[in-house]
Amino acid sequence: MAALRIPDALVERGVTGKKIILFVLDGLGGLPHPDTGLTELETAQTPNLDVLARKSSLGAQIPVSPGVAPGSGPGHLSLFGYDPVEHLIGRGALSALGVGFDLRAGDLAARLNLATLDGAGRILDRRAGRPSDEEGRRVVEKARGGLVPPEGVEVFLEHEKEHRAVLILRGQGLGAELGDTDPQETGVPPLPVRALAPGSERSAALMQGILNQIRGILEDEEVVNGVLARGFAAYEGYPSFLDRFGLRALAIAQYPMYRGVARLVGMDVKDIPGSPPEIVDLLQAHFQDYDFFFLHFKYTDSRGEDGDFDGKVAAIESVDALIPGILAVEPEVLVVTGDHSTPATFRAHSWHSVPVLLASPWARPTGSSFGESECRKGDLGTFEGKHLMSLALAHAGRLAKFGA
Amino acid sequence: MAALRIPDALVERGVTGKKIILFVLDGLGGLPHPDTGLTELETAQTPNLDVLARKSSLGAQIPVSPGVAPGSGPGHLSLFGYDPVEHLIGRGALSALGVGFDLRAGDLAARLNLATLDGAGRILDRRAGRPSDEEGRRVVEKARGGLVPPEGVEVFLEHEKEHRAVLILRGQGLGAELGDTDPQETGVPPLPVRALAPGSERSAALMQGILNQIRGILEDEEVVNGVLARGFAAYEGYPSFLDRFGLRALAIAQYPMYRGVARLVGMDVKDIPGSPPEIVDLLQAHFQDYDFFFLHFKYTDSRGEDGDFDGKVAAIESVDALIPGILAVEPEVLVVTGDHSTPATFRAHSWHSVPVLLASPWARPTGSSFGESECRKGDLGTFEGKHLMSLALAHAGRLAKFGA
Repeated sequence: MAALRIPDALVERGVTGKKIILFVLDGLGGLPHPDTGLTELETAQTPNLDVLARKSSLGAQIPVSPGVAPGSGPGHLSLFGYDPVEHLIGRGALSALGVGFDLRAGDLAARLNLATLDGAGRILDRRAGRPSDEEGRRVVEKARGGLVPPEGVEVFLEHEKEHRAVLILRGQGLGAELGDTDPQETGVPPLPVRALAPGSERSAALMQGILNQIRGILEDEEVVNGVLARGFAAYEGYPSFLDRFGLRALAIAQYPMYRGVARLVGMDVKDIPGSPPEIVDLLQAHFQDYDFFFLHFKYTDSRGEDGDFDGKVAAIESVDALIPGILAVEPEVLVVTGDHSTPATFRAHSWHSVPVLLASPWARPTGSSFGESECRKGDLGTFEGKHLMSLALAHAGRLAKFGA
Repeated sequence: MAALRIPDALVERGVTGKKIILFVLDGLGGLPHPDTGLTELETAQTPNLDVLARKSSLGAQIPVSPGVAPGSGPGHLSLFGYDPVEHLIGRGALSALGVGFDLRAGDLAARLNLATLDGAGRILDRRAGRPSDEEGRRVVEKARGGLVPPEGVEVFLEHEKEHRAVLILRGQGLGAELGDTDPQETGVPPLPVRALAPGSERSAALMQGILNQIRGILEDEEVVNGVLARGFAAYEGYPSFLDRFGLRALAIAQYPMYRGVARLVGMDVKDIPGSPPEIVDLLQAHFQDYDFFFLHFKYTDSRGEDGDFDGKVAAIESVDALIPGILAVEPEVLVVTGDHSTPATFRAHSWHSVPVLLASPWARPTGSSFGESECRKGDLGTFEGKHLMSLALAHAGRLAKFGA
């Protein structure tokens, strides 16, 4: 008998109602404040989350594996039940999905930084002084207007935000094993595009030609006169959330990156919230039409990366105020967690486990509040993040018994 | 280098004495009572288990993987140290083993429901009004007496209990990828036997012919005039408990299903206990002749499935009374756990972790009583059930050091 894929093989497909909400507070996990010994989440006043925690199963999830700090892509893939090591994805493909580009299997994508070069072609500023969105968009459109695609290849150039853009090549057999041209330092010229494996030589030559064209088109610009490419990735297509779990899924996220990773697994993206409270409005507006809702809140991660402990505490408290509105739709299962930890003292994504709260009628409550200490003692134990979807499906009555 | 199979490669084969008892309280794990917040096990008065818990390593085991509610087969295979996903087994094969049938590698087995059909061949009752054991046996023997086996195939038809029977085909190359004929509803005829994969077409045709014969033989019956088949499975043979772990093992279980899964891994089955206290009598009677004893207690699961919280509490208390008799044989290791959770509030097998108590001179005691809360804080942590055998072997001095 062929190996069984769990949980996919056990998914009950006829279930109606019993909806699941996954609320991701980006970078939620923290480290203790040196004065108090309490993390950001433990410091925050979160009366709504604490009441919920007392009715929930708690635990701690490890997004990839012990010691591994994940980027946003792997962190979210894991939460969505896709093994992030098996389903590796480049930042380029993620960014392309994030700007709403209709990626197709075989497309080769790269992230571009708009940059400033000196007269000798050396990098002065890897982010071109962080141009406004308007200025960034103007320059990208200028480059796009002047580009002549190589024979047999389509080229797409899309502005993302500020100094960030995405370049996509569409054609036959475009190998993606390419080295970054961004040397990650100033005072040196961009690196040439190198093929890192046989089969990517042609892509390397095509990509170099296009980057040379862009450099030529932007030569007369004062500030944004170059680009740096990184995160080359071929988009291979993923088994969809609907096919795997029988869930019609909606992503509600302010930032393109997170809409991108949601699209990657086939989630719908409809309206884009302009602010965190609008996440709840959109949830309520679309609750009847979907089975699964991925809600994304960005600022916990942003404040963590800023090293702003108090700011991250405030961000968590602002999330707590959204909880009653989320509970008002009466989901069968509500999961609150993060895609990774971003401790304010660490100022970056870290490998530490992430607190998990799973509210459901079938919870085994253990704790009095939502925080790392209570979650570590919770009934779910410390587990790999990729199992979270199985737990959510089970608590929603959407997994059949395994074997007789 | 070939992968090392752990724990098999480390098993010490010359050990005498140092016996292991695995006492399985079926469906042991529970959920909190809404009034008290205590589970069935935490509610039960279990003075003997509590004293034992204070000398034991405690933990919580996940039978298959997070979120997965196992059937009895996978749940027990996991406890016996067999990865239940790798060692998938159909209910047909389990049932055949359960009635004491001498399954051989290659045999194709299916579960049969005795059913009632109307004049047009549509199902009126999928269980034929739940006939008595005596009536069920009579009908099965009648069908067996009239069957003419197809060329080159042996056919065995065995009554199990009430409306349940098992059909086994023995022959060369019998593919088992067959769809159930039980449509799981009434008012429609049984489904034809369909091959779900190439290589099973011949089995499908043979099986259909046999089911047609049975239908013809039972045509004059008033109530039990048809059969429904499901859970087709080829028995492939498992590496035995003795070969893997060097343990001569005895199963003591009242119900056929659990004797079946024990036979599957090569355990002996001698006398069958008529009541739970007789489990202890048989343990004492055979203690000198074996190294490993699997004791199975059913009623924790039965009361859980009934939704009878107090009944499950009482069942647990009746088990507690058996503990002194079990300890009287002085095993080196006594493990008390379940094959899965069956919370009375959930009324079914669930995915929740199962409390584990491992009594041995080498325990790291942490708790004051045996229950989900104490086990969750125990030294063994939350672990996959398939590792339990390694822990039992280690505590019995039956695993060598790994590497120098």
